[in-house]
Amino acid sequence: MNMPSNPSRNPWTLAARAAKMNPSVIRELLKLTEQPGIISFAGGLPSSKTFPVAEFQAACAKVLRDDAAAALQYAASEGYAPLRALVAQQLQEQSRAAGQIWEVDPAQIMITTGSQQGLDLVAKVLIDPGSRVLVESPTYLGATMAFTPMEPDLVGVAGNDHGLDLDDFQAKSKGARFLYVLPNFQNPTGRSMGEAGRAALSASAAALGVPLLEDNPYGDLWFDQAPPACLTARNPDGGIYLGSFSKVLAPGLRLGFVVAPKTVFPKLLQAKQAADLHSPGFNQRLIYEVMQNGFLDRHVPTIRSLYKAQRDAMLLALDTHFPSAQTDPEASLTWNTPAGGMFLWARLPAAMDATALLPHAVAKGVAFVPGAPFFTAQGDPRSLRLSFVTSSVEDIHRGVAALAACIQEQRNK
Amino acid sequence: MNMPSNPSRNPWTLAARAAKMNPSVIRELLKLTEQPGIISFAGGLPSSKTFPVAEFQAACAKVLRDDAAAALQYAASEGYAPLRALVAQQLQEQSRAAGQIWEVDPAQIMITTGSQQGLDLVAKVLIDPGSRVLVESPTYLGATMAFTPMEPDLVGVAGNDHGLDLDDFQAKSKGARFLYVLPNFQNPTGRSMGEAGRAALSASAAALGVPLLEDNPYGDLWFDQAPPACLTARNPDGGIYLGSFSKVLAPGLRLGFVVAPKTVFPKLLQAKQAADLHSPGFNQRLIYEVMQNGFLDRHVPTIRSLYKAQRDAMLLALDTHFPSAQTDPEASLTWNTPAGGMFLWARLPAAMDATALLPHAVAKGVAFVPGAPFFTAQGDPRSLRLSFVTSSVEDIHRGVAALAACIQEQRNK
Repeated sequence: MNMPSNPSRNPWTLAARAAKMNPSVIRELLKLTEQPGIISFAGGLPSSKTFPVAEFQAACAKVLRDDAAAALQYAASEGYAPLRALVAQQLQEQSRAAGQIWEVDPAQIMITTGSQQGLDLVAKVLIDPGSRVLVESPTYLGATMAFTPMEPDLVGVAGNDHGLDLDDFQAKSKGARFLYVLPNFQNPTGRSMGEAGRAALSASAAALGVPLLEDNPYGDLWFDQAPPACLTARNPDGGIYLGSFSKVLAPGLRLGFVVAPKTVFPKLLQAKQAADLHSPGFNQRLIYEVMQNGFLDRHVPTIRSLYKAQRDAMLLALDTHFPSAQTDPEASLTWNTPAGGMFLWARLPAAMDATALLPHAVAKGVAFVPGAPFFTAQGDPRSLRLSFVTSSVEDIHRGVAALAACIQEQRNK
Repeated sequence: MNMPSNPSRNPWTLAARAAKMNPSVIRELLKLTEQPGIISFAGGLPSSKTFPVAEFQAACAKVLRDDAAAALQYAASEGYAPLRALVAQQLQEQSRAAGQIWEVDPAQIMITTGSQQGLDLVAKVLIDPGSRVLVESPTYLGATMAFTPMEPDLVGVAGNDHGLDLDDFQAKSKGARFLYVLPNFQNPTGRSMGEAGRAALSASAAALGVPLLEDNPYGDLWFDQAPPACLTARNPDGGIYLGSFSKVLAPGLRLGFVVAPKTVFPKLLQAKQAADLHSPGFNQRLIYEVMQNGFLDRHVPTIRSLYKAQRDAMLLALDTHFPSAQTDPEASLTWNTPAGGMFLWARLPAAMDATALLPHAVAKGVAFVPGAPFFTAQGDPRSLRLSFVTSSVEDIHRGVAALAACIQEQRNK
């Protein structure tokens, strides 16, 4: 054999799509905020107080006592059948309670490694290079991060306080592979779509032939009343629905699910098989055991009331420290009032820039996430996202005070 | 708004790559074999007798008692730092014991959702449509399933009893993005590369500038002596190494790892983040806890001796039921003698076809996997894979007897 000897050159050639992958801007920013003593409104971490540890302890003991050989073995790519059936039943019940009949067949449900994996699988199955993919503007960064490797043409659809601007959606819909939408307590804005907005979007999408990719990680975290029925329930053949156990049980087990129409499900399943064979069967059984006997009906209300109290604390602190928000919004921080979820969306006084402000805020002991990276195109530099779920009520008050002092100081410079 | 009303048409357009995804041939075949009472040599399932259930029980209790808030929370995409450090240390020690110095930095290790996910991430980062990707012929079907959505030009490199045909590798190497190779107890053939073959392949790949993607799920399952040092240890900058906890602890926790050079690691990490954010932190801690105090040094030998006894039982049964294998190989089943792992590779008498034989074998109560689907091009229709790890010694004898009777009957038709 004739071997050229140049072993020192770099033998790796990256795929073109790799050049489009970038480190999450937010993840880089979060490193800034991970210093001891910082009050962080930045991360989207559920409060660890809400994790049902005793129930997980009991579930681990039961599964390993009664079903270890199956729980620790390879398993079906679709997921653990009893969990799939339970999810189908819950979706049907929630939908019925919201006034919408949705017949969910467990055969349409696939358990995924977090709902993030649902985004990755959908991207693989539905996006060609250059495919038009519509997203809300702003939208969840993890979704654009999952779509980007498949090289879509991402197009932002304008939103308003109640959801999407339907005229903008219609204007941009031609040839779109799908619209990605978070109707409940959206990340990053905390906003929700009302019943009228959902009915109109569902009808418009069906008429235009644009499928919906509906992501609903926060829907159970409502504060005063349950949100209207989900979009997929209104037109199941035209939607893929992503759900998650991360916000109602625990993110560290990495389990979510996809509900897909029978035309798309087999391809998603093949993509799932190739991606990780199946999600951990042990974890699926833990979630299933913990959910027995209506546990979520007792547990989720405790999460709602905790987060509601923390949202209220943040609203009160904002009112206290930014008293001119109503009377002089260009000179003050302004914010919305989310009806659930984890995030509040705020806007700095005129001419300020949230990304530029962040290091000063961190120096004062408080962190947030600038809003601009959540937009597909040029984002509003004044916007920022505040999470109210990770910090205690006391820290929320101290953190908002520090933020107010920092904004004041920077405005006076 | 002007809405055309044709809500009944199918709104979904699949990506071109979805057309190339196919249900795993083997998975479809396995459905045939999943009937009660069938002795299955088909699946690649570790024996559930080897799962350390008591140790997992203790680990669950400890993690949920001491570290629940972190174990159940979102976590770093790279994985649990103590587990990464432990993996690095083990790889270094194994390599040193095999006479090769390999400095593994924990920063190069990423924990994945099974080593299957490593294949998916590598495919995303290294394969463009049309990229030449070399694989052994035959090779692991899960790998081609993971590569296919990224639309490579898969090229099979011929093998022999000791590994790869280096002349064929060199002839096909031009422009190859990487060579995917399983040097230890390969799936499906059970064959292993010797020291000389590894040294030559490593030198040849380095000289030709072809990176190696080394998959090593079975390396710990040796029967008489540990295999030579892995390929990546010989040229760390030119290789990505995939490892798994599935065969030494349990597949149902879905954990594996990737070791990648610093030129490729950041892109794999971004792909990981987009794919599922991170692998379950709870499971990573369980594996870490179970591995404390040299547990694998005591546990893995028990797996080796179990599987060795079962391999020996299969060899004995084959010798008994196919007495003319040596004297008249065209008229008998023939087989190899794997030195570890889970599989044995066999060949039917001349003019027989393993795919055609399978339903007859199932009717007689025994199942196997035909070998042809493991080849990228036209596969040997006489070849088949026999797993010796899932069935008991008694069932192995009964199953081989049934297989022999079936082959005899079909030959006489």
